[in-house]
Amino acid sequence: MAEKIRVGIMGYGNLGKGVELALRQNTDMELAAFFTRRAPDSLKTLSPDVPIYSASDAIKLKDAIDVLIICGGSATDLPLLSPEYARYFNIVDSFDTHARIPEHFENCDKSARESKKIALISAGWDPGMFSIMRLYGGAVLPDGKDYTFWGKGVSQGHSDAIRRIDGVLDAKQYTIPVESALERVRGGENPLLSAREKHTRECFVVAAEGADREKIEKEIVTMPNYFADYDTTVHFISKEEMERNHSGIPHGGFVIRSGVTGADGETSHTVEYSLKLGSNPEFTASVLVCFARAVYRLNKEGICGAKTVFDIPPAYLSSKSPEQLRKELL
Amino acid sequence: MAEKIRVGIMGYGNLGKGVELALRQNTDMELAAFFTRRAPDSLKTLSPDVPIYSASDAIKLKDAIDVLIICGGSATDLPLLSPEYARYFNIVDSFDTHARIPEHFENCDKSARESKKIALISAGWDPGMFSIMRLYGGAVLPDGKDYTFWGKGVSQGHSDAIRRIDGVLDAKQYTIPVESALERVRGGENPLLSAREKHTRECFVVAAEGADREKIEKEIVTMPNYFADYDTTVHFISKEEMERNHSGIPHGGFVIRSGVTGADGETSHTVEYSLKLGSNPEFTASVLVCFARAVYRLNKEGICGAKTVFDIPPAYLSSKSPEQLRKELL
Repeated sequence: MAEKIRVGIMGYGNLGKGVELALRQNTDMELAAFFTRRAPDSLKTLSPDVPIYSASDAIKLKDAIDVLIICGGSATDLPLLSPEYARYFNIVDSFDTHARIPEHFENCDKSARESKKIALISAGWDPGMFSIMRLYGGAVLPDGKDYTFWGKGVSQGHSDAIRRIDGVLDAKQYTIPVESALERVRGGENPLLSAREKHTRECFVVAAEGADREKIEKEIVTMPNYFADYDTTVHFISKEEMERNHSGIPHGGFVIRSGVTGADGETSHTVEYSLKLGSNPEFTASVLVCFARAVYRLNKEGICGAKTVFDIPPAYLSSKSPEQLRKELL
Repeated sequence: MAEKIRVGIMGYGNLGKGVELALRQNTDMELAAFFTRRAPDSLKTLSPDVPIYSASDAIKLKDAIDVLIICGGSATDLPLLSPEYARYFNIVDSFDTHARIPEHFENCDKSARESKKIALISAGWDPGMFSIMRLYGGAVLPDGKDYTFWGKGVSQGHSDAIRRIDGVLDAKQYTIPVESALERVRGGENPLLSAREKHTRECFVVAAEGADREKIEKEIVTMPNYFADYDTTVHFISKEEMERNHSGIPHGGFVIRSGVTGADGETSHTVEYSLKLGSNPEFTASVLVCFARAVYRLNKEGICGAKTVFDIPPAYLSSKSPEQLRKELL
């Protein structure tokens, strides 16, 4: 058995915990350390044998960590942390603010080229596996169109937006793809679909005693950017029902490419990729972990700089050898 | 506009014709020549301006062709042609005899290393896109199981087997996945499925006048390897109905990975990739063409030897630049 890939986790929220668990499923990798911006003593992990360091001490550990997986938010954490730590470590992040990816890529690329490390950004499932599917779909069927649908699943951002409303104690928002829209896309119709036609939004809300539910509901369904452009339903439920029925973080979705071939585009094809995820952060973490393996291997070959999921040969993600892959999976 | 990638087509059957058409959809590539083992004069292509050469003259054209796509059968053509032409050209093939892939890889690797060219073998959809999906699925969800279902679609091999029966004038065999098995797999049940439980076989047969239909049907459903292990139905139809309703070569299928994450495997996930193809050879050809693009680019970077779809970074398949890909698809 070769030496194990030593992985560090920076940040211990849902995603960091997911990485901790995913590493246990990959016997060629080991969790070497946690890093946190909280007081290390205050952190209770599931891995009592793994040391917990302050984030500010991370650089001292730079030779003890092969890949650092940065588990932070895209709004304020990752734009700072990823370029900073790429100056010392191979890193993997799940940066998902689509519009700012080019800028984040440039920042990480600069750091990683200087350190001769790899910064793999925007891994996960969207961006991530879904992006890969959009790329393959368009490369194979250039005369076509792709559609991405999300859900059914919990949108953290939308749930948070509801929680900020006066009189709301807790809330969970599910994004749900419209089945008839999915069917039209699968049928190769290439429809033009508005936001409202693609997804509906379903909200479960725990209201404070005596709160004006009608007002809360109106505030939700008319909220610009978040809900106004969608058909939104609001259910008021008890705190107990919230805990019983809505404690999970499921998600998923669909990437569908329909395209044509032939002398006159007379032949239709449909390619569909779908995910049904019991836990969004656990699946995202599993993706991060296999890309960490690829980052380690590629860096060993002398490759450096910022990379995305588009740049990684699939074989590098698997613990199997190239010979095994050809024999067993090709 | 950069110079176009000059592609040659070796062999002009359904697949070669598919490549000819697919190249028209990729403006960064051009069809430079056909090569045939038939008399070049006898070949009628859809591209009257593209020269047709005898296969035996191909080597003379080695500097005029960037990638040669070899469109031949896996039983006898490709095991000879691919290693032979990889001595002079970058090549792409669709070798699909799973059990012999390791051997074919070695043979092509030897030639391609000597010539400093790339031989990309076993592209298409299975092996090909389905293989990639099996790899991604297993890398992301190592504690899981994958299932491949084929169809609904025409199996050329099974159709040919029926055509060899006495009294059969024509035949078409459809492989059909069993819907209830698909549902069990999607549900994460991880069932053990026999051949019979996964697929059924439906045969449409044109019998000669006066032929013993009962005898033909019995011969089909009891044929070892091909039909004996499946539930097979046989329909006798007229030559006209065969032409009217069964002239296409549709195919498709499903790769489903179900797996678990969490501290005790308590979280389930399902990943599903499916293809619904109007034409098996046209879609396969479209895959070959985008892998030809990747082969050209990688060889320009000095890479050589035998490769499979597992070795190709997705970005190399697309005509878009890395910046465009990150901006538009990530």
